[in-house]
Amino acid sequence: MQLYQDPKAVNPRRVRVFLAEKGVSVPLVDVDVLKGEHMQPPLSDLNPMHRVPVLVLDDGTVIAESMAICRYFEVLHPEPCLFGAGALEQAVIEMWNRRIERRLLDPVSQCFRHGHPAMAALEPRQIKEWSVLSKDRAADMLAMLDAEMAARPCIAGAAFSVADITALCAVDFLRAARLELTDAHANLKRWHGEISARPSAAA
Amino acid sequence: MQLYQDPKAVNPRRVRVFLAEKGVSVPLVDVDVLKGEHMQPPLSDLNPMHRVPVLVLDDGTVIAESMAICRYFEVLHPEPCLFGAGALEQAVIEMWNRRIERRLLDPVSQCFRHGHPAMAALEPRQIKEWSVLSKDRAADMLAMLDAEMAARPCIAGAAFSVADITALCAVDFLRAARLELTDAHANLKRWHGEISARPSAAA
Repeated sequence: MQLYQDPKAVNPRRVRVFLAEKGVSVPLVDVDVLKGEHMQPPLSDLNPMHRVPVLVLDDGTVIAESMAICRYFEVLHPEPCLFGAGALEQAVIEMWNRRIERRLLDPVSQCFRHGHPAMAALEPRQIKEWSVLSKDRAADMLAMLDAEMAARPCIAGAAFSVADITALCAVDFLRAARLELTDAHANLKRWHGEISARPSAAA
Repeated sequence: MQLYQDPKAVNPRRVRVFLAEKGVSVPLVDVDVLKGEHMQPPLSDLNPMHRVPVLVLDDGTVIAESMAICRYFEVLHPEPCLFGAGALEQAVIEMWNRRIERRLLDPVSQCFRHGHPAMAALEPRQIKEWSVLSKDRAADMLAMLDAEMAARPCIAGAAFSVADITALCAVDFLRAARLELTDAHANLKRWHGEISARPSAAA
């Protein structure tokens, strides 16, 4: 089993942190996206979507998409439980994981990919106006999320979950959109300090 | 239990088709997004993200995000199994569901939201260039998906899954991006005919 990943990219980090929380070790194969290695074999053969991370099983089966890879390991290594137990807990974690993805991680990525000169080669064409709008959306979500986090210790409730991993990676990626947590985000800062102190955050 | 939804919107349809496949009936409360009802109470109180569908349980617990709602019912009503059984099947279905969401459904939605005059009120500002690029991305995915579908009956493999539901709703939403299946998409057309013939497609 091998995990094709870029040590500098945000989505592979989600999987690395998830594996560290599970105590699972998977051999990594580095792919330098900035050098375009995701557009060349072997990755272009493994994933026609040209994205990392990609997990390749010993029989050659390919699993792409960060959350698909994480769910694979959640079933094989159920403890600690990171996608929740029971219908309601699973649904609430899924809801928050997706809200963080779609309202924070995606806009930060879009701001970066459509705004930074180094990303020009990775997009068919950069749209500066989309970069600016995406930054606004990420900033709005930070404000909303900070208000939410006044009421609970973790993103999806009382317990640490995959939603905290997505949020940790998104917050640590804010600089790509020239955003950061400020004094206006006291609740998020408290949460971020706690999550960053976990050993998995270094993965 | 009530499901707040817009009968004309694409994401609520994903949940309606999913529930129909499960044989589960949930009372619907219609919210007219084009009239801005998602920005007003009760929906604005239920979901600060201002999106439908939203499931409200009898105790008032709110579950937003289509796939979070579907996963809630998958646990409560495991048959027919729509998110897969076992680590590998679950991962492959998750991979394809997300690929369809991110490469087809999202671009079609973005093309529509940033290109159609009726959507201007729903976006902080429309970006026509983003609409055009999104349409190109959706068209690219249709071509890639058609090639994939030469080799298997359903989106994620041999069996019908939630990925087929997402793809059905995305394909039926193509007209919003002024796209359609053509003779160049023979495999997708075969698949679309089969999935559309299921009673759940009318939900």
